[in-house]
Order: sequence, then C-alpha cells, then structure tokens
Amino acid sequence: MIKFCTSCGAEVGLRIPEGDDRQRFVCVSCETIHYINPRVIVGCVPVFEGRILLCKRAIEPRRGYWTLPAGFMENGETTVQGAARETWEEARARVSDLELYRIFDVPHISQVYMFYRCEVVDGAFGVGPESSDSGLFLEQDIPWDEIAFPVIRETLQEYFVDVTTGDFPVRVSAIERRRPRD
Amino acid sequence: MIKFCTSCGAEVGLRIPEGDDRQRFVCVSCETIHYINPRVIVGCVPVFEGRILLCKRAIEPRRGYWTLPAGFMENGETTVQGAARETWEEARARVSDLELYRIFDVPHISQVYMFYRCEVVDGAFGVGPESSDSGLFLEQDIPWDEIAFPVIRETLQEYFVDVTTGDFPVRVSAIERRRPRD
Repeated sequence: MIKFCTSCGAEVGLRIPEGDDRQRFVCVSCETIHYINPRVIVGCVPVFEGRILLCKRAIEPRRGYWTLPAGFMENGETTVQGAARETWEEARARVSDLELYRIFDVPHISQVYMFYRCEVVDGAFGVGPESSDSGLFLEQDIPWDEIAFPVIRETLQEYFVDVTTGDFPVRVSAIERRRPRD
Repeated sequence: MIKFCTSCGAEVGLRIPEGDDRQRFVCVSCETIHYINPRVIVGCVPVFEGRILLCKRAIEPRRGYWTLPAGFMENGETTVQGAARETWEEARARVSDLELYRIFDVPHISQVYMFYRCEVVDGAFGVGPESSDSGLFLEQDIPWDEIAFPVIRETLQEYFVDVTTGDFPVRVSAIERRRPRD
C-alpha cells in the first residue's frame, strides 16, 4: 500500500495510466507511477552425505519451526548468489554446485520461491542470527511435524523421492491460499 | 531511489536497520523500512509447427527490434499466468502446455527472467498494442540481426539446438553488464 510519492512526497491516487490496463498508484503532483511487483525468495536444499541442512527459526513468522535456509533476494545479486548468501546467513554454511530444483508461485502473497540443490562444503555449518538451531538430518530424522512452511515440506518430500532415482527435475507449481481452518 | 516515505510522506534516510546488514531507505519519522527488490520478467517461447512466435517492439527500449513476448510479472499472478498474459498482450496468442525452460539473472539491473516453452493454440496470433508486427518464424527465417535483447537471442539459439534432441533442460545463467563499447 502506497500513500505518498517516493519522488516528491505528495499524495498518490489509484488510476489506470495511459497505455496500461490496471490501476497503479500514481502521484497526483509529479505523476510518477509506483509499480508494486512480486518478490523473489531464494533458498537452498543443502546436502551433505545424504543429510539435509535445516535451520530452526529464531524469528517470526513460525518461530521455533524448522526450515530450509531461504530469504528475500536482494538487488544486485543473482538467484544463485542470493540462495548461497541466505544459507550462510541462516546456517553459516558455505555451499557449492548449486542446481535449480524447485519453484513455487504463491500468488496470494505475490511471492516466487526458487530453491537450489547444493552441497555443504566440508559439511560445516553453524547457527546464524535468525536461527536458534541447525542440523543435518537424514530423512527419518526430519522433524516433519515442526516444518515451518508448506513449500519447505513439499520440497523435502520431493527431494527424498528424487534421491532414490538420482533424477532431479525442476518442478514449478503454485501454492494456493489455505482455508482459515487448515 | 526513494526520497520520501510511502506511509507518511516524510523524508527517508539510508541506514542499516537493527538486525540487518545493509543500508535501507528508512523513514526518519515513522521508521518504516523501504525495501527495494529485484523484479521478475516472465515470458514465453511460443511454438507452432516448428515455428517460433516473435513480436516486433513498438515501444522503447529497442523499438523496431524483435523479441519473445515477455514483461514484468504482476502482483497476484503466477509466473505461468504472467507468461501467458504477456503473450496475449503482445502477440494476441493463447498458449498451452507451458514448461519452464530458461532463467536469466541480470544482476546489474536487478532482474530475473523466466521463459516458458509453450504451444500456440490453433496457431492463432495477432499484434498487441506494444507491438508493431508479429510472426511465426522457422529457424532460418529468424531476424537474427534484429533481435532486441541478448537474453532473447540466447534463448532462441538454445531452443533450436534442443529441438534437435527433444531434450529441453531448464538452464540458469547470468547476463553480465556489457562494456560500453559492445
């Protein structure tokens, strides 16, 4: 939601700019058009000797639940760089051999998730400031009842199926809004 | 570049918010943090009977040059929906069977491109308002010297290699800033 123009500080109003087909926030004074676009979340499925690196969230939302290292892509970086950066920030792990693995669209919150499979260099990891714990988990040890988000659970489930064949197709699907009682 | 707060209209300043590690535009009055994130461009490689649907750009940048239908992803849609929408808007073609094909990171302009291979329904197409022409091209008829952007040329070149094997791996790579004399 935009109330004021980032260029001149005047108020903005919703209208359809010339040549456009949908409402945008347009400054009533300088006519700057303020676009709001989806955001990209980049993350990793970090693997070491058959184990997956997970972090326990120290921050909301879903504090105390386990997740794959992931976060908002920053300006000036590639998706690969962003995924590696998040893995360092959240799990203090360096990663290599990143391969695109899973894309989720989450249109009701205008987000696109991109996960890369990768190797944890030397199996070394730690706990970053946004995590309260981290660890390498075999499939049977994954805390399935304490996974933070549906995209994480689905990615992990698919990974443990794919690893049995060694074939890791890139999948794209959408996560729909969950009903309130879910 | 953000000069004024979108929430309250006061000035913003660059500083590192608590718990962050990089400068953000933060409102000096209400302390709202204004993040600026990369944008996603979604597009298609629309195919009909071995021909690729291209559009001639009627707008800058690169007006008069040929491109694959693509544009900024909008809030509230999936990448697949956005790619199909852009193909309708620019080439008046309905598409089906969208399969993720090519991702480009363009970090110096903070953009991520996502192209989907797809079929042109009934081979029908037209010319949208941002195009001055469109057409289905066999490989030998592609106007290679009049392609609008490097990501388009590279995607087309890869497609015509992949189509000889029928294997279309999803590729990810980065486009670096071009030197001024290029």
